[in-house]
Amino acid sequence: MDKVFRINMTNLTTCIEEVPEEWIGLGGRALTSTIVAAEVPPLCHPLGPDNILVFAPGLLSGTAAAQSGRMSCGAKSPLTGGIKESNSGGTTAQQFARMGIKAMIIEGLPAADTFYSLHVTMDGVTIEEECALLGKGNFAVIEEQVAKKGKKIGVMTIGLAGELKMAAANISVKDPDGKIRSHGQGGMGAVMGSKKIKFITVDSEGSPAVPLVDADKFKASARVFAKTLLDHPVSGEGLPTYGTNVLVNILNEAGGLPTHNFRTGQFDGHDKISGETMHHTIAERGGRVRHGCHRGCVIQCSQVYNDKDGNYLTSGFEYETIWGLGANCCIDNLDQIAEADSLMDDVGVDSIETAVTIGVAMEAGIIPFGDGEGMLRLLRDELCKGTPLGRLIGSGAGLLGKAYGVTRVPVVKNQAIPAYDPRSVKGIGITYATSPMGADHTAGYTIASNILGVGEFVDPLSKVGQVELSRNLQIATAAIDSTGMCIFIAFPALDDAACLPALIDMINARFGTMLALAPSYPVTMSPSWVKK
Amino acid sequence: MDKVFRINMTNLTTCIEEVPEEWIGLGGRALTSTIVAAEVPPLCHPLGPDNILVFAPGLLSGTAAAQSGRMSCGAKSPLTGGIKESNSGGTTAQQFARMGIKAMIIEGLPAADTFYSLHVTMDGVTIEEECALLGKGNFAVIEEQVAKKGKKIGVMTIGLAGELKMAAANISVKDPDGKIRSHGQGGMGAVMGSKKIKFITVDSEGSPAVPLVDADKFKASARVFAKTLLDHPVSGEGLPTYGTNVLVNILNEAGGLPTHNFRTGQFDGHDKISGETMHHTIAERGGRVRHGCHRGCVIQCSQVYNDKDGNYLTSGFEYETIWGLGANCCIDNLDQIAEADSLMDDVGVDSIETAVTIGVAMEAGIIPFGDGEGMLRLLRDELCKGTPLGRLIGSGAGLLGKAYGVTRVPVVKNQAIPAYDPRSVKGIGITYATSPMGADHTAGYTIASNILGVGEFVDPLSKVGQVELSRNLQIATAAIDSTGMCIFIAFPALDDAACLPALIDMINARFGTMLALAPSYPVTMSPSWVKK
Repeated sequence: MDKVFRINMTNLTTCIEEVPEEWIGLGGRALTSTIVAAEVPPLCHPLGPDNILVFAPGLLSGTAAAQSGRMSCGAKSPLTGGIKESNSGGTTAQQFARMGIKAMIIEGLPAADTFYSLHVTMDGVTIEEECALLGKGNFAVIEEQVAKKGKKIGVMTIGLAGELKMAAANISVKDPDGKIRSHGQGGMGAVMGSKKIKFITVDSEGSPAVPLVDADKFKASARVFAKTLLDHPVSGEGLPTYGTNVLVNILNEAGGLPTHNFRTGQFDGHDKISGETMHHTIAERGGRVRHGCHRGCVIQCSQVYNDKDGNYLTSGFEYETIWGLGANCCIDNLDQIAEADSLMDDVGVDSIETAVTIGVAMEAGIIPFGDGEGMLRLLRDELCKGTPLGRLIGSGAGLLGKAYGVTRVPVVKNQAIPAYDPRSVKGIGITYATSPMGADHTAGYTIASNILGVGEFVDPLSKVGQVELSRNLQIATAAIDSTGMCIFIAFPALDDAACLPALIDMINARFGTMLALAPSYPVTMSPSWVKK
Repeated sequence: MDKVFRINMTNLTTCIEEVPEEWIGLGGRALTSTIVAAEVPPLCHPLGPDNILVFAPGLLSGTAAAQSGRMSCGAKSPLTGGIKESNSGGTTAQQFARMGIKAMIIEGLPAADTFYSLHVTMDGVTIEEECALLGKGNFAVIEEQVAKKGKKIGVMTIGLAGELKMAAANISVKDPDGKIRSHGQGGMGAVMGSKKIKFITVDSEGSPAVPLVDADKFKASARVFAKTLLDHPVSGEGLPTYGTNVLVNILNEAGGLPTHNFRTGQFDGHDKISGETMHHTIAERGGRVRHGCHRGCVIQCSQVYNDKDGNYLTSGFEYETIWGLGANCCIDNLDQIAEADSLMDDVGVDSIETAVTIGVAMEAGIIPFGDGEGMLRLLRDELCKGTPLGRLIGSGAGLLGKAYGVTRVPVVKNQAIPAYDPRSVKGIGITYATSPMGADHTAGYTIASNILGVGEFVDPLSKVGQVELSRNLQIATAAIDSTGMCIFIAFPALDDAACLPALIDMINARFGTMLALAPSYPVTMSPSWVKK
């Protein structure tokens, strides 16, 4: 039976609890948000003792289902002030699921100034004092833990940004190759830092396979499901070839690539930072064009990007990061952006929030637009050193904008607007404006229908249909985020009639449930759900 | 007939308008808040083109009535996000009233990066480009304008804090001796800076006396009114002798002197920073124990504080400033606090917001509690130089707290809580919590009844009666703030049956109105209004 692991950082105690009945059917985002809503007083300070930090794998995590390795992390956000969830690849979702950890809840905070590390095993959680790694970057933490505990160890860690409780601080998660994935948006790393936890290791030694009620049915459905992913042009071809950065040219063409701190929607230098250019650069330099953020990923939208001498520079180099420091800051040098990506991973900040903050810093005149070296200096000499200006950069676009009296500050609920201009892609504007999580493209990714024509094309420049599109996608995404699935399964789910039934069949085969697709219900993910 | 002077900083045009009928009966706060509510879109950015900055003298300003020289300044606040008014002594309220300027409204903002100065005369307003004084402190601006235009010139100016649009920036006003009074709370200086106005001169040459409908009645009432001020122990004795700083020992005794960033309510070093100590120090060093912030002031709660060599150090040295850097930052050195007061006046920041911000900076570990030299260094080398840390200090306690992940941040609606602990003076807690202007003691100064026993004693530690006390005082204060009267007239108004009728008689004699005290109305200021 699954359990809840609970850690109290005030008393430095841990315990293992039964899963309350009302949580049994929940996983991923559904579970973390439910627990935060139930246990966190709404008006508490996000960095105070009453906030909690929750991790939960999805309902299908730990199985052989493709794309099922996303871990959900939730808390009251120091950035938005509301309930936040941020999910990430890496190895921990599958480890937790196999270990029978339905959720791990961290509550309270220590009175003393000491930092700690948590060590999760099949037997529970132990808490150790941590000094040596304080102030160190995320790569060093992961390397040291791998050296100490072996390659299979799972690691969730914060860099200096999290230690200093910066609102843009993320939680970095070791991926299958020892590189970094992130619980990015919303400042989850600051919450972990407030609880004085530098890192968490996950040792799943001895964990059994995830139990399946009907193994044969599961296997058959999983095969159908994976095939729909590979058959779809976006998840089977576009993303594997060019990564998420395939979007630079597409959004630029649509006038939806925010440029010059959201002044216009097209960037002169788009070719130099596009997915196509990135693909050729990676191939030339002996990097890896395809890479998965977790085992079982068949989309492989990640990559390994080497520098011009062929040495590893960064991985998980996403469209949003490249857009943010590229088009939005008018920097057309992919190597500088890759170096920045690595710095942000190491100090532990969300690359969307930070890139938009750099854009606002340029607006404030701290450095000029287009100044790639200046951008790297701000990250290396200010953010990574925790200077006052570094604190401002790590606190997000809203705060830096206030400190410098800037009025052009692209945030919703104080969270930076990501890489899709809401003026020329109106559906995503509805998502930004209405999601309780602020400007979060993943909360209801209307780009699928507005730009990529997946499911059904909804004209991005017209107001017609955008509310329904965003609403339905927000509900559907909440469901996907609860399964532990990567959001990109939405592409076949919207276009391929075999995808969603296979997903539901896997859930039924895993738990013995009798869920079925309700064709009359407006929020299924069949191609017909988008009302004209 | 009174006029409205309107300045459009987008077009750099000015005009003189008739007073709309609905504004005729309003003055001071009533007028500035009405105009802001009418003309500012509620959701606009406070530093953007849609905000306005309004100045209005009170209904009795410009007359011979004692205490009538307070100017109201209003805008949407960059600190609280709501309608803010901040009133100040100085010479401009009486000048405006004599010149027939009912209100001066500044709207829009220039496209170019140029700064300007405004010059107000009987003929209207002229706009000049300003370069020479940019970056200069408020004292230099006032000195230069006095040198250029003579001692009678009125000046309203912003320091570097306002130029840089820091949310704690105030507007400094030249007082009768060429020293500084301030529109302190709420960031009015940032709004002036956003409109790129470095300073405003007021030349009232040629202005007639304020017209009185019944001069004899006015004179008689004014005499009665002034006598009630002089007869009352607080306004006639306590304030003139010790200044507002008389409150240090009183609040310390009551356990209501917030200390160590609002940890406790009593400060070991209270004697060293008390009004009594200040009085003797001033007398010893040849300063001035009594001083008025505007002509016609009979209370004279201000003073001139000299350094140990007998040279001018600061004036208008208020209890709230001395508490904020003293008890709240655990600094027991009055000379250091006086030097800080002068620095804050010169760079142009609200001393309450800034002092509380320094306390939060101490909480964050930037400097230790009690470090007077460190405090001066933060002001001199960071704030006055506009460094990133200086921007944080000038942006107020809420923002600095967020950038440093501090959870003990004493603000309401993002405005710093002033010098009265709401836990041991519960009435003022109601004011802080319910005033639309955030934590503003002057919005409903329950200290009068809770601590000084004026009107009627309401036990500060009991919850009984506090809501009514705060509510009634908030309404009464809005009325006082509309007359141009100093808030300290509330002491005789609450205790002396002759005071309020005399005030109303002055208004009637000035305008020919027939206002009368309504004894049955719960919100008169007679001693009986405080319900037990």
